Amino acid sequence: MGLSLGLDVGGSKTRAVVVRTETAVGPVLADHHRPTQSGPSGVVDSILQASDQALDQLGLDRSALDSVGVGLPGLVDPERGLVRQAANLGLVELDLAGALSQGFSCPIRVENDVKASALGAARLLRQTAQLTYVNVGTGLALATVLDGRLLRGQANGAGEIGHLSLNPGGPRCSCGQRGCLETVVGGGAVSQRLADLGLDLADLLDTTSPPARHQAARLVSGLATVVRVAALAYDPALIVLGGGVIATAVGLTDRVRQRLARGERRSPLLAHLGLSRRLVELPADQPVGALGAAEVGWAGVGRPSPSRWLDLADQIGTTGPKPDRPLVIA
Amino acid sequence: MGLSLGLDVGGSKTRAVVVRTETAVGPVLADHHRPTQSGPSGVVDSILQASDQALDQLGLDRSALDSVGVGLPGLVDPERGLVRQAANLGLVELDLAGALSQGFSCPIRVENDVKASALGAARLLRQTAQLTYVNVGTGLALATVLDGRLLRGQANGAGEIGHLSLNPGGPRCSCGQRGCLETVVGGGAVSQRLADLGLDLADLLDTTSPPARHQAARLVSGLATVVRVAALAYDPALIVLGGGVIATAVGLTDRVRQRLARGERRSPLLAHLGLSRRLVELPADQPVGALGAAEVGWAGVGRPSPSRWLDLADQIGTTGPKPDRPLVIA
Repeated sequence: MGLSLGLDVGGSKTRAVVVRTETAVGPVLADHHRPTQSGPSGVVDSILQASDQALDQLGLDRSALDSVGVGLPGLVDPERGLVRQAANLGLVELDLAGALSQGFSCPIRVENDVKASALGAARLLRQTAQLTYVNVGTGLALATVLDGRLLRGQANGAGEIGHLSLNPGGPRCSCGQRGCLETVVGGGAVSQRLADLGLDLADLLDTTSPPARHQAARLVSGLATVVRVAALAYDPALIVLGGGVIATAVGLTDRVRQRLARGERRSPLLAHLGLSRRLVELPADQPVGALGAAEVGWAGVGRPSPSRWLDLADQIGTTGPKPDRPLVIA
Repeated sequence: MGLSLGLDVGGSKTRAVVVRTETAVGPVLADHHRPTQSGPSGVVDSILQASDQALDQLGLDRSALDSVGVGLPGLVDPERGLVRQAANLGLVELDLAGALSQGFSCPIRVENDVKASALGAARLLRQTAQLTYVNVGTGLALATVLDGRLLRGQANGAGEIGHLSLNPGGPRCSCGQRGCLETVVGGGAVSQRLADLGLDLADLLDTTSPPARHQAARLVSGLATVVRVAALAYDPALIVLGGGVIATAVGLTDRVRQRLARGERRSPLLAHLGLSRRLVELPADQPVGALGAAEVGWAGVGRPSPSRWLDLADQIGTTGPKPDRPLVIA
């Protein structure tokens, strides 16, 4: 029996799952989350505490683990285990794999959280051949799984579509440009705009005042553009929306789907692409990021991907478009 | 000795190259081009005549060939050898592989011309790991080679970035949308706009009248956006500009590079990505599309890619950023 730990470290909470990684054994054995403390030692402590609590559910300790995978925001160098520029964790630069190696005796792999979530979503939705995961959190980024591998690009920059500037006269973005897609649909910018207008993201789509309708239309239109960029760039079988904005603004994915369908009625090309049929929302409350992180860790020790993690998809009743190829992490 | 024929069928001319495909033998043996006749029988005749003329340079006939590859515009289904919607060739739908099978005794593979050119550019520039080729012809499309394979997407739609609509109030596009990138930088739209103003694409960048400068700025800005989309989507090592607009408007690639460099001075993220250093122009007068098509045909017969086509890069003095992985066509 192999045991893998996967961690999803977000700005507010850290989630840890323990999964069995032999082919004949079932999926998530333990699942625990706790608040994330910020700063280098805070992040390391949060990871260790969440790990111990999850293991404790099974009466185990860290020595039982075969691999650890961690997904977290920022510029992550998986080769060297480094994290840089993770502002909402209070990290400028941290050798996370190095810092954690004192707490664990097994190999540790670190990955960007959006990329880890794409792997988890690909696994959960049984679409590891061609899937794009769009994370609409504080920021905006996407990750694409192609033939079971993450598309990284030459400098891990593939999918940084939040910093596509479409409006040179738009609001200033943290990246130094103006009018980036992140300033239109990213949670940080959206929350600020809504707060200034006395509006709340959670009930934005149910609010009928003109400012609310204007803000909703802007958000829906921006997300439809993001989906079209993903579709025209990668043409994936599934485009998955997730992240804090999607989870908070209930009904947003449906509205984006309606918007895409409207475009399809006007454009034969868009009708042919059929984006509205490819768009799905990340299943709520599933530990997608932590599962993907566990897979990153497991692949990092050079073992084949477990074939039966698909059991999880059976349990929650999700189905993908077609049978799937094995997941391989480059 | 193996002999492969590659054809690049464009709206105005059809180019045929004959290449040796054994590992120890040199590259292009014969190279011929002639005007393309339109319509189904015109296209087939153009291909056969260009092929025979190229073979004739070597004192050979079609029976000497081991494989044929054809690159041409439109929606191409490589599996079935079909071409659809190639408007500038006068083709609505044609079983091209079937039609050619009566003229050749060896296997024939058909590919979209932009995808074939991406393979040819990857080979020529020694960057088969991560290269995006942006074709600015009558229309606008790109193709990406990743780890030696073409990124196709689930419906061969990957790279149809010309139909990314960024301005819902913009000019109507052939695809049914408004304000697509193709309406900003595609040769069809650009030529029409310039003709209406009495301007000429060939000397647009040297013309100092306010309308010329406005049109030049619009073209440069649009192309810079296309390059940024490619970079943020795929993060490739090289982004290659080619096609009729690039070949005609001498100096355009340099202007786009300057524009990207200006953006890098304002944005740390863009500076980190360093797009201006990754941008190159397709080497002029090299038979890139036909070479890529020959590779498509050769791979279609299930043979390994010849290792020595790189000789061509040696001959013309181009160099790529680093040693290369073998090219594999999915």
